[in-house]
Amino acid sequence: MERKDIRRIAVFTSGGDAPGMNAALRAVVRTAAWNKLHVYGIERGYEGMIDGHFKRLERRDVANIIQRGGTVLRTARSMRFMTPEGRAMAADHLRAYDIDACIAIGGNGTFTGAKIFSEEHGIPFIGVPGTIDNDLYGTDYTIGFDTAVNTAIEAVDKIRDTADSHNRLFFVEVMGRHSGYIALYTAIGSGASSVLIPEAETDLEELKAVFRKNKARGKLFSVVIVAEGHPMGGAAGIAAQIKDELASMEPKVTVIGHMQRGGAPTAADRMLASRLGHAAVNRLLLGEENVAVGVISNEVETTSFDDAIHKEKKPKSSLIEMASILSI
Amino acid sequence: MERKDIRRIAVFTSGGDAPGMNAALRAVVRTAAWNKLHVYGIERGYEGMIDGHFKRLERRDVANIIQRGGTVLRTARSMRFMTPEGRAMAADHLRAYDIDACIAIGGNGTFTGAKIFSEEHGIPFIGVPGTIDNDLYGTDYTIGFDTAVNTAIEAVDKIRDTADSHNRLFFVEVMGRHSGYIALYTAIGSGASSVLIPEAETDLEELKAVFRKNKARGKLFSVVIVAEGHPMGGAAGIAAQIKDELASMEPKVTVIGHMQRGGAPTAADRMLASRLGHAAVNRLLLGEENVAVGVISNEVETTSFDDAIHKEKKPKSSLIEMASILSI
Amino acid sequence: MERKDIRRIAVFTSGGDAPGMNAALRAVVRTAAWNKLHVYGIERGYEGMIDGHFKRLERRDVANIIQRGGTVLRTARSMRFMTPEGRAMAADHLRAYDIDACIAIGGNGTFTGAKIFSEEHGIPFIGVPGTIDNDLYGTDYTIGFDTAVNTAIEAVDKIRDTADSHNRLFFVEVMGRHSGYIALYTAIGSGASSVLIPEAETDLEELKAVFRKNKARGKLFSVVIVAEGHPMGGAAGIAAQIKDELASMEPKVTVIGHMQRGGAPTAADRMLASRLGHAAVNRLLLGEENVAVGVISNEVETTSFDDAIHKEKKPKSSLIEMASILSI
Amino acid sequence: MERKDIRRIAVFTSGGDAPGMNAALRAVVRTAAWNKLHVYGIERGYEGMIDGHFKRLERRDVANIIQRGGTVLRTARSMRFMTPEGRAMAADHLRAYDIDACIAIGGNGTFTGAKIFSEEHGIPFIGVPGTIDNDLYGTDYTIGFDTAVNTAIEAVDKIRDTADSHNRLFFVEVMGRHSGYIALYTAIGSGASSVLIPEAETDLEELKAVFRKNKARGKLFSVVIVAEGHPMGGAAGIAAQIKDELASMEPKVTVIGHMQRGGAPTAADRMLASRLGHAAVNRLLLGEENVAVGVISNEVETTSFDDAIHKEKKPKSSLIEMASILSI
Repeated sequence: MERKDIRRIAVFTSGGDAPGMNAALRAVVRTAAWNKLHVYGIERGYEGMIDGHFKRLERRDVANIIQRGGTVLRTARSMRFMTPEGRAMAADHLRAYDIDACIAIGGNGTFTGAKIFSEEHGIPFIGVPGTIDNDLYGTDYTIGFDTAVNTAIEAVDKIRDTADSHNRLFFVEVMGRHSGYIALYTAIGSGASSVLIPEAETDLEELKAVFRKNKARGKLFSVVIVAEGHPMGGAAGIAAQIKDELASMEPKVTVIGHMQRGGAPTAADRMLASRLGHAAVNRLLLGEENVAVGVISNEVETTSFDDAIHKEKKPKSSLIEMASILSI
Repeated sequence: MERKDIRRIAVFTSGGDAPGMNAALRAVVRTAAWNKLHVYGIERGYEGMIDGHFKRLERRDVANIIQRGGTVLRTARSMRFMTPEGRAMAADHLRAYDIDACIAIGGNGTFTGAKIFSEEHGIPFIGVPGTIDNDLYGTDYTIGFDTAVNTAIEAVDKIRDTADSHNRLFFVEVMGRHSGYIALYTAIGSGASSVLIPEAETDLEELKAVFRKNKARGKLFSVVIVAEGHPMGGAAGIAAQIKDELASMEPKVTVIGHMQRGGAPTAADRMLASRLGHAAVNRLLLGEENVAVGVISNEVETTSFDDAIHKEKKPKSSLIEMASILSI
Repeated sequence: MERKDIRRIAVFTSGGDAPGMNAALRAVVRTAAWNKLHVYGIERGYEGMIDGHFKRLERRDVANIIQRGGTVLRTARSMRFMTPEGRAMAADHLRAYDIDACIAIGGNGTFTGAKIFSEEHGIPFIGVPGTIDNDLYGTDYTIGFDTAVNTAIEAVDKIRDTADSHNRLFFVEVMGRHSGYIALYTAIGSGASSVLIPEAETDLEELKAVFRKNKARGKLFSVVIVAEGHPMGGAAGIAAQIKDELASMEPKVTVIGHMQRGGAPTAADRMLASRLGHAAVNRLLLGEENVAVGVISNEVETTSFDDAIHKEKKPKSSLIEMASILSI
Repeated sequence: MERKDIRRIAVFTSGGDAPGMNAALRAVVRTAAWNKLHVYGIERGYEGMIDGHFKRLERRDVANIIQRGGTVLRTARSMRFMTPEGRAMAADHLRAYDIDACIAIGGNGTFTGAKIFSEEHGIPFIGVPGTIDNDLYGTDYTIGFDTAVNTAIEAVDKIRDTADSHNRLFFVEVMGRHSGYIALYTAIGSGASSVLIPEAETDLEELKAVFRKNKARGKLFSVVIVAEGHPMGGAAGIAAQIKDELASMEPKVTVIGHMQRGGAPTAADRMLASRLGHAAVNRLLLGEENVAVGVISNEVETTSFDDAIHKEKKPKSSLIEMASILSI
């Protein structure tokens, strides 16, 4: 069956917000306008699709948003979209607006919804990977990851000032519910003493040995980066388990938290978002569908939703090893 | 009794570190050098005084530190200095180095130590108020407060991006163990919905009413700033107490934490620290002693250690009222 | 003559934009709403007043702007308002909207326009001092000054990194067409070697002597801060006049420029703007008019437009002297 | 001929400084220590090599520098090293310290010096690409580029605030003497209206047409990014040539300048520098020499000095085209 010409598209952001989503939206709208497409923005992701919250977006509507954190379309997690009834309502709205295809900016859950919906209702989707966690297969980096890492590193730089003044040990928890990407990059970038992530075995005896050695060598402070999703219970869990060892170092636990999701996107995130938003429209016009765009080895590539959703992406083991060598 | 000529002074930082302490140290050293005094820096506050960790500081030794967070002299809290024996050892070292007077950069505990020591051993002290909490009588602002507030506000600005994208409620805890200054200034500066501080009654029923009203009005997110020392148990304590009311808003608790102590000092903190470090030396040379310098109504003033230690400083009630009016 | 009850007010920003203007606008609108006043925002200052660009502003219209640089009402310099005809058109519009009083956020030119207009047309004005230059009498600091100084200092901190790596001399020009405030505060805050401002005599021979002495002492780089309005022609002018002396130091000239006008306002500017916007409405309701609000010695005060416009405010000579002592 | 075992290495930074050089140095020293090598740091690049300014660097000597801009080893451009006599002196010093190989952190000129020296004196070199300009063949990105682009974008974000408030046109010049990389990435990241770089034809008539069209469309401000090395004379040159067209838009020229060389390195630059410093030592130990390390398509690769020096690297034309599509 031949595909309908693409004349009208919808775009939305969904799932957890990530800095750079606005830059991606801008690129979608402007590339679409350049190609004479009509664009509708859907508010609050699948929720707005179900409720019919659509608005026409023209070039000037996305002026002056490239530098803004969050997403001007707002975002949500939608329970209703997990039901056939919810999806049917969403499909009705898309048909009412005569939408030929959708561009979905989000993460794993967003792509899963898109795949199921597209199979049920025959509307083509392109996914744009927007999530700070970087745990999506099909792209070297996801939109928002570079900003989140920079935010975490700036926080650790500040904590280091006070750790350095005081002879202290800090356990700093960064985001990443299932993934150690943010933690690993933050640890390398901040020169942390150790990094504890789900993807690598954590040996508490070894960690204690490091502290003892550092102390013996006169190292005056240590910062340990812990991924939120560490199976021992995040930073608080780890600190609790080796408390006795650490008594003399006044260990402190800091959770950097939600500020990692916000802030003006970095240069790299603005560039990545611009490239991917631009590519999403171009790939759609070239006939691709139900794929996610990504940048792999500096080139734009596409990956089937199936692979993007199910294949695993993990930090390179060479980086984990390097982190350990450089921390000493 | 006539006071000895001041020819050799010692300077140190003590207690919690605060951004701008290095700028104050630089001002002390350079103003002293200008006046042909010899300056010794003592490492780790009273601990270093007891252990004899003194080093000669000349003009060039404090080059390129004005912008650095933390304190290059490092800091500590000293249990030994609370004993007569500890103070006697410290006095021996000061006499061995032939120190005529000391300049102590720190907070309430630092000044208390200075006062007791000076009364016991007859060595004049000048205090320079360095603490992020701003809860010291005798100066409108303490060194580090402006930086801490800016750090907290930048964090809230980022959290606001994500709150705004998601329709969420955030409880953000800022530093201030006994004081709501950082919380109040952060709330006004970040446009928070509410601020909960030890200095003002907290009425949880009223707070819930605000949330209900905001929701009815379609206000899409709220940020509540809570002082660490709030008697209901900080942000986590407050959030727990009104959890049921908030279920539909997905309340999140964020503790900004120790990053508020670090970072490059702001312009205002560098200026304040420069003025106070400069004034500390000048006042010493004019014959003052056992006073803290401060800036009150834009002028440098001195306050007796007794008043600085015992009198209370509280946020203006007019600011608390204004915060409430502007948040609506 | 008794004054009309104040029920409807207009607010606008005019002249050069300054960070914090949005925070002041927010405070005006919310304080007015609290007092049951109706508020109209005028776009592009006196230009919009002449052209009738008014819009109703309610509490929620100023949500989420406290952190934004620039001014959402936009600003302009108006030639037409300098003519009686232009002002008559403006007055017609104010009367058409039944405006009882105006709040003008801007600098010297803005206040001058307000004073003339008010005398001609009998509509009360309150001025709110918004200008990065800090050269307005009647307030210790103007809205935007603290942000501009922080921006300049952050720029110098970065330049210092490279100067320090390379053994270089930098002439850095900061804003201030008639005033050395930004230059002086930037110099003290960045630890510059020298500062050249209109308010103090510049002796080039002395400056050369400083360079020679620094070189002899092994000081490896120097940063000289120059006010834009320095009578010898700003940074470029000064550098040209002592070029020969400096050949071996590879002198560089940097003009920080318009970025000093932008950026998210600092904590201090948000606080000052909130206090002054809030006070402007309160003072109006208390019957004051044709005055500028300001913060003097930490208290809100008002100053007649006449004094605000004509009296001179200058950096304290004690700060100029201190800058010189600390730079060595 | 079999190569001597590598036991003692020297490392230095040379040419223009770039943020991340310290992170690279740290990675070299720690990876070398891990491999039981002795490391000497040479101050001020080839100048220090000629003058014998070597110092032993151990692991702890590079603690707490990863976040610092500039280079703690300082840098210089050396005329003497361009002469056989200068190089002979440098070789004498290397032999005196029994140095088996050198790691040179710098740009094109640094690598050229290394190649000539190595051919003359038989000491193996590895190059690490550190220059903000990104114009080095053999690596997708050079150390310092990401930081410089972020600094430029932050400056443009601030300028945009004021441009937006005022209806203005800004010509913003960014660094890049022979290359438009910084300009192109800054333009895409800041959402600029146009970008003028040496690598693409500049048609002033077309630029004027854009301004006319923007004006007709009610676009209220424009920012044009110009590469320093633009053949029409940088931002000032371009602005002068179309002055008449622009009179009504109050065009302003801003040169961001040397602050682009400084500042704390970004996450990406710290990561890149860590990987390349680490790889430089590893490759040396694997027997490679007279090559530059780089990251190409996310993998560490080496390129012969010949290629790194002589082959040209240019921005992708697809990015130039995308910049134009997104700017509208």
